[in-house]
Amino acid sequence: MMERREKLYEGKAKILYATDDPDLVIQYFKDEATAFNALKKGVIENKGIYNNAISSTLFAWLEEQGVRTHFVRKLSDREMLVRRLRIIPIEVVARNIVAGSLAKRLGLAEGTPLPRPIVELYYKRDDLGDPMINEDHVAVLDLATAAEVRSMREQALEVNRRLSKYLEERGLRLIDFKLEFGRHKGGLLLGDEITPDGCRFWDIATAEKLDKDRFRRDLGGVEAAYQEVYRRICGGG
Amino acid sequence: MMERREKLYEGKAKILYATDDPDLVIQYFKDEATAFNALKKGVIENKGIYNNAISSTLFAWLEEQGVRTHFVRKLSDREMLVRRLRIIPIEVVARNIVAGSLAKRLGLAEGTPLPRPIVELYYKRDDLGDPMINEDHVAVLDLATAAEVRSMREQALEVNRRLSKYLEERGLRLIDFKLEFGRHKGGLLLGDEITPDGCRFWDIATAEKLDKDRFRRDLGGVEAAYQEVYRRICGGG
Repeated sequence: MMERREKLYEGKAKILYATDDPDLVIQYFKDEATAFNALKKGVIENKGIYNNAISSTLFAWLEEQGVRTHFVRKLSDREMLVRRLRIIPIEVVARNIVAGSLAKRLGLAEGTPLPRPIVELYYKRDDLGDPMINEDHVAVLDLATAAEVRSMREQALEVNRRLSKYLEERGLRLIDFKLEFGRHKGGLLLGDEITPDGCRFWDIATAEKLDKDRFRRDLGGVEAAYQEVYRRICGGG
Repeated sequence: MMERREKLYEGKAKILYATDDPDLVIQYFKDEATAFNALKKGVIENKGIYNNAISSTLFAWLEEQGVRTHFVRKLSDREMLVRRLRIIPIEVVARNIVAGSLAKRLGLAEGTPLPRPIVELYYKRDDLGDPMINEDHVAVLDLATAAEVRSMREQALEVNRRLSKYLEERGLRLIDFKLEFGRHKGGLLLGDEITPDGCRFWDIATAEKLDKDRFRRDLGGVEAAYQEVYRRICGGG
């Protein structure tokens, strides 16, 4: 049995707890939601339960595909056991279809398919609004080595290829998503979560948004969207 | 003799005129100054004369150093004869010391020396506020080939090395600068201008700003700063 010890970190959507094993931590999923760098705050009922289930299923599946992640196992409705990482403070975003900040940055209409995926790096710094950065900024800030950046980029593209196909079979279009990586015993593992909080999922048939944009843009049906993604990925009701 | 024919393009600080030679255009330097994506406008007396002289001297010197530029010759106080380029709509910025938007982006104090130069790419689109982009955006927007981006990056670093030394001998610290490149007969040439409009120059002894930041930030002594850079680079009074 794995018991929660001291709280190591509390973020906007998750809490990390130590365990008796120094290599393992418990990732607890909350219902709290934030957007626009926490200017907007709210609660999405049962989000923590859906996100834990979605992430657990996707991490387990990615591991089967050869992607190395921090995932060990799902412990309970809201708890996931993961390896303890030294998180690299870079958000790696991969995009297939124009949406969100990319629409604004390039002046392209949301929904425009990209001729090839785009990978972007963001400096994980709430106080700076998570600015976009490039490899030179990464080097100067000493956030990661050039080899680590290459590896994160390649892994993001690999996850994108595999996950796009996986989701397509479940009627979901993977528009874009954010990954975080961490160092673990000399290697890099995929960390954090893969959920409608950090991915954009659109229903393939209707183009309906089934992700946090429903919360960001007050589109209604927020909990139902998370539940729908949960149902399609985890097969639950 | 080279005479101005029809106006090809009018920008914020320069006008391009055709000549009787389809390969050559006249770049005319105006006194108009803008900042913050043209939200702030003004006139810096004689700026056009100083910038034409500074750019002509620097382009001629860079050509001697083996850097290929659009520069042909200075025609008059405000006119420079240049090769006609198909401009790549990317601003290539190289930085040695933290200033301007980099200070804001990374939360670093202006004046902080960088352990190594940073190169940044910006999409030249006034209507979007010239957003920062990366190589994937360049590819998706079809702005330049991967080889062109590599070449522009290497040339920016090469110009940075040479120009930093050249300016240091004249008591000026090269903080950062913006370059533009264009296609010409199957190759890339350095285009546009190299002036206090697009570079940050600080006096090495006093750290006084001798560039457009005096205009941007209402520091006074704007024309005197341009004149001082002109004096140090062109040896004029």
